[in-house]
Amino acid sequence: MQDWNTELQKIAPLNAVWRDKAAKRLKEQTRPEGSLGVLESVLMRLAAIQKKEKLSANPKRILIFAADHGVTEEGVSLYPREVTQAMVMNFLNGGATINALARQTGAEVKVFDVGVDGDFTRDPRLIHSKIARGTRNLLREAAMTPEDLERALRIGAESVHQAKRDGIELIGLGEMGIGNTTAASAVNAALTGEPAEIMTGRGTGLGDEMLAVKTDVVRRALERHEKFFSDPFEVLRRVGGFEIAAMTGAMIAGARIEMPMVVDGWIVTAAALAAVRLNPKILDYLFFAHQSEERGHKRVLEILEVQPLLNFSMRLGEGSGAALALGILDAAVRVYNETATFAEAGVAGRRDA
Amino acid sequence: MQDWNTELQKIAPLNAVWRDKAAKRLKEQTRPEGSLGVLESVLMRLAAIQKKEKLSANPKRILIFAADHGVTEEGVSLYPREVTQAMVMNFLNGGATINALARQTGAEVKVFDVGVDGDFTRDPRLIHSKIARGTRNLLREAAMTPEDLERALRIGAESVHQAKRDGIELIGLGEMGIGNTTAASAVNAALTGEPAEIMTGRGTGLGDEMLAVKTDVVRRALERHEKFFSDPFEVLRRVGGFEIAAMTGAMIAGARIEMPMVVDGWIVTAAALAAVRLNPKILDYLFFAHQSEERGHKRVLEILEVQPLLNFSMRLGEGSGAALALGILDAAVRVYNETATFAEAGVAGRRDA
Repeated sequence: MQDWNTELQKIAPLNAVWRDKAAKRLKEQTRPEGSLGVLESVLMRLAAIQKKEKLSANPKRILIFAADHGVTEEGVSLYPREVTQAMVMNFLNGGATINALARQTGAEVKVFDVGVDGDFTRDPRLIHSKIARGTRNLLREAAMTPEDLERALRIGAESVHQAKRDGIELIGLGEMGIGNTTAASAVNAALTGEPAEIMTGRGTGLGDEMLAVKTDVVRRALERHEKFFSDPFEVLRRVGGFEIAAMTGAMIAGARIEMPMVVDGWIVTAAALAAVRLNPKILDYLFFAHQSEERGHKRVLEILEVQPLLNFSMRLGEGSGAALALGILDAAVRVYNETATFAEAGVAGRRDA
Repeated sequence: MQDWNTELQKIAPLNAVWRDKAAKRLKEQTRPEGSLGVLESVLMRLAAIQKKEKLSANPKRILIFAADHGVTEEGVSLYPREVTQAMVMNFLNGGATINALARQTGAEVKVFDVGVDGDFTRDPRLIHSKIARGTRNLLREAAMTPEDLERALRIGAESVHQAKRDGIELIGLGEMGIGNTTAASAVNAALTGEPAEIMTGRGTGLGDEMLAVKTDVVRRALERHEKFFSDPFEVLRRVGGFEIAAMTGAMIAGARIEMPMVVDGWIVTAAALAAVRLNPKILDYLFFAHQSEERGHKRVLEILEVQPLLNFSMRLGEGSGAALALGILDAAVRVYNETATFAEAGVAGRRDA
């Protein structure tokens, strides 16, 4: 992990000069001061990342990382493992929820096979980066070899570098993988120290009985691997997933090259938590889309001290919450770029100003 | 108010057949059941209003009602009264926040002068419906004559009928009027019975001293007019505003002709509360955009038992929250119309299904 530590050390703090410029611009626009609420903080942060007069939310791209999970053999999911592959095909054919949301917000969707248990015919719409046909069962052994982890991190990092080369201004991160709420529970529990009971939820809709099984799997997995939890990379390797590690790699690279990124729900938040534990400055480059319905999500967001934009009780993944939040960012950017100032519009300011 | 009572009685309940059809369609789409959270309730309600297989969020229109308020002479606002007229010009010139947000979501903006204290040159972009140059001072007398109220309600109703004739599928309601958070406080307090202290907020950003003045104005206005508060029309007439009454008229007509409408913040909520007190069925046709930063808004939303879509601590008005929520509805409608079913996509369903 030597290279990664070098990269991590190179992540820059936000640019305070551009942040202040944005604050000034917002104040001059024809609105009561501060009246856009949290959108103003979002815009100031975006300005500090993008460092330009007019901000850009376009072109935007949603990266979806798909992988299977060895832990599904423990009976932690309502859906059979082959759904991962079937949903990837659905993404490629434009039939999934995320495709509709991406079309709505004008985002391109790129799908990465980082470890789906199934073969895809060569397809230019899919990025073929399969590491293995699913991780190993994290309850029995480490989910990944050190080489697997390295590959996952690199695939994620490269996806962001490629986006930058393609002129992308804003990225949304999403995932697909039957069983991955379990891996995310283990990662989030390992990195926060919160117990399995708090960090394990119903995923796609488990009943009480299956939830008890899943919680027990997470608890035992945490016990098995806990002596390695001081290192976030080891957490990812032992109890994570290929897609989770890829997204952590994407976030490290994204912060390194100053790319604003929108974090989706529970699983992407696990990747973000790992990234932030590796370097807290990464948090500055992340916009949290929504608080999902998954039990532990609110708690992890609190621990990260972030306020997500939306709270629709969604629990879908695929980058769906990120896509909705991209639309909000897009709208905020347009306000920032296009609203007239008091001087331009000939509107009187505050009496006390 | 005889005609209005007839109209109110004709408002239909939501169509349960179409609601159930929508629930079925959502369940068949390639997502875990219920995973879109509150967006699913929104879509079921929209289907029950629109009664068709594919839902429509477009074309959409934002109606902004602008008026001045006699109560500004009590020193309840940070901004001088002429800002109302100046902001209307800003709306017409496309320079305001709402214009940027409307462009983003593809909504048309129609601005109504229902009582601005200033002359506009004939302008096809403005609907000239001035009732008077501002209401009377609600602290000293009734804000409107019965004829004023009737005109305001009719202007609002006609704006929705015109939208229907123009093929509009979804309406957002917004307002502009220096002093109108005060009128809205009085209306919301009068109709909920909550005290002035709870229902009066900082508006565009009052300090403690001006807030105390404003709260006292609301308290004394409530005392003066309270014997008339059993009739929501009288509440509007005595302590409301032209733009508030116009929006209540719009909501009555909108519910009557089954037009889905998005409610913006504090002031539009006052209009909505009056409408709902006139006929609770109107609530079924309203989508609450956001919880604003204005002190009493959360409480009124609770009393109405509605969950707004967004919570960005905004306090701008202009229909700005409604515009953001229109974007969310638009995205939800696209998901509803375009997501493949499990059968179409060849994705396996739940094991227990």
